[in-house]
This record gives sequence, structure tokens and C-alpha cells, in this order.
Amino acid sequence: MNVLEERICKDGVVKEGNVLKVDSFLNHQMDVNLFNEMGKEYARRFKGKNINKILTIESSGIGIASVAALHFPGAPVVFAKKSQSINLDGDMYTAEVESFTHKNVNHVIVSKKYLTPEDHVLIIDDFLANGCALQGLIQICNQAGATVEGIGIAIEKGFQPGGRMIRNMGYQLESLAIVDSMDAKTGTIKFREQ
Amino acid sequence: MNVLEERICKDGVVKEGNVLKVDSFLNHQMDVNLFNEMGKEYARRFKGKNINKILTIESSGIGIASVAALHFPGAPVVFAKKSQSINLDGDMYTAEVESFTHKNVNHVIVSKKYLTPEDHVLIIDDFLANGCALQGLIQICNQAGATVEGIGIAIEKGFQPGGRMIRNMGYQLESLAIVDSMDAKTGTIKFREQ
Repeated sequence: MNVLEERICKDGVVKEGNVLKVDSFLNHQMDVNLFNEMGKEYARRFKGKNINKILTIESSGIGIASVAALHFPGAPVVFAKKSQSINLDGDMYTAEVESFTHKNVNHVIVSKKYLTPEDHVLIIDDFLANGCALQGLIQICNQAGATVEGIGIAIEKGFQPGGRMIRNMGYQLESLAIVDSMDAKTGTIKFREQ
Repeated sequence: MNVLEERICKDGVVKEGNVLKVDSFLNHQMDVNLFNEMGKEYARRFKGKNINKILTIESSGIGIASVAALHFPGAPVVFAKKSQSINLDGDMYTAEVESFTHKNVNHVIVSKKYLTPEDHVLIIDDFLANGCALQGLIQICNQAGATVEGIGIAIEKGFQPGGRMIRNMGYQLESLAIVDSMDAKTGTIKFREQ
């Protein structure tokens, strides 16, 4: 088990409905020393890729991406904004993303100034389940003509379709913990062997 | 001039209406190496304070707070959520904050689990102008019985009342750059001597 999997076992809480609560260390209270270890691991897994930009999405991706970026010298972090309404300002890339979970449409927005064809992008986010947010971020990279060099996720719900779909499209997707199943009654979590 | 003031002079853009755009390095695209230098400076200015928690607010405070927290060993970051609607869940501290700029009411929300009377808090945020968000964060610390040890801001608009008000209440407020005046025509920015 890696450091994130160990922490999930220690402090994660499994709830009914395949919900995994990790807000004590990942997405409300954030253990930045854990993020630093995760950043080292992303740097190891994406070694040799010429990454010059990290792209994430508000809010819970920002902490992980910011600390991880310290392990990618010279790469700033750009965070996409979420909005229910679309801003028709032509200076923005926008992607319309339908939420599988909430059955509504969200917009993912990045300023054109901060994503260009010269960019070799590592996308970082905290969770991957159905992959809706991730699809929006990839769409925006495509609009900008930027190259997606890889995708680094903290926790992937392996029993939901997002991860398979992204890998099927040929992206290097690295999830530090892939949860294959969870049991709310016993609190047990089964990780995929990596 | 410190490293943040220099960067503002180099890459900040002054717009009409006392608007300072710093989205190329601070709050949309984020230079995490700059944040690391800012974190060192916060550690120097708050040396001797027994800080065990960093509190910030989504979204643009999160990157600065997360990288800065690496300079406060053992202190996790908690980020408050903003919401137009109030969640009546009793597990949350909520503060109602009236926006001076937008004339609307926002709620600032933190889980009760992550702020307690044992906490000695450093509040970090990117901007201080009228201080509305900051008042909400202080209110929440007071609700929790936590001690506010200090407040670290990146850019304070010294010509707006937030900073004076917070200092008048006796808080140690450290803004790395205090803008006393800006001129959109010439693009010049005057910083307060510190």
C-alpha cells in the first residue's frame, strides 16, 4: 500500500451508497505533507514527460495540484472555474459538462491566456468517478491546442466508468488509489493492485 | 521591495475602478514557487506563534494556503466553503457575510470537526479590500472557540477599510503587499513602506 491508500484505510469513512468521506485529510481539511508525498509520486510516474503546466478545477483539486506542482519545476498551476451560467466573454475557453450524478449542466472555464498550443499539461484532481469534470478539462485542453501529457488523480472509484473510459482514449491516467469496492457495514475498502 | 511586490510591478495590470489584475500568477494561473517564497515570509512574520491550523476560503486562497502550510510543520489547511444558500446541517459553523461590493449575502461554512478550541489558527487569503470574507472567517473561529493567532494576506488594498478595521481589533495582520494607490492611466502602483 502506498501512503495515500494507508491514509484512506486509517481516516477514510465508508458511507452507504458507495460514498467515501475523506474530508479529514483530502478535500475540506487538507494534509499538505500527504500532498507533498503524492506530488513526489506523480513526478515519479510522469518522469520523462515534458510537463510545463498543471491544470486542475476548483475547489478541492487546487490544494493537491499546488503542492504537487512544486515537484514539476517551472510548471504553474491553472485552475478551471465552475459555473452554472456561461460567461460569453470570448477570452475564455468553456466546456459544457453534464453531471451524471446531479443531472444538471455545469460549465468549466479557463482563460485563453493561460492555456496555449505550447502547453504540455498534467491534469490533477482529487476524485475520479464518472469523469465528468475530467472530460471538461480535456475538452478545454483540446480547444486550446494544448497537449495532455497525463492525468493524476488521488482517488479513483474503480467500479464507476470514468477511469476505464479515459484509459480507453489512450491517456496516461495515474490514480494513486483505485477503490474497487467498499462496504459501508464493515468499513472495509478493497484497492486495485497497481 | 519584496518578491510579491516585485512580481506585481512586473505582471500585475491596473484597470479602471481600482482593479488590480493578478490572474497570471496569483488567482487563476498560480506561480507555486512564488507561493513558496510567500510561505517562508509568513513563517518569518509569525515566528513564535504556536500555529497548528491554517484556515482559508475557496477558491483563490487555497493554493497560497496549501503551499504556505509546508512552512508550518504539522498544520493542516482547512478551507471554508462559500454558498449562497445556507445548509442547516448542525455539523457546520456558518457565518453570514454581506458583500460590500456585490450587495448580496454569502455564507461561509466550515465543518465543526475541523475547527475546535484547541486550534491556534493562521488565516490566509489572497486579497483584502473591505474584509467581508475575512470577517466571516474570524466569526467562524470565534464560534469554534479557536484562537486567531494571525492573518496573512497576499495583497491588501490599503485605500479600502478592511485592513485598518482588522488591525484596530488587535489582530496581527500581515499583508505582503499593501497597495496605497494605483493609476490605471500610467499603470503605476504605490506600495506602503513596511
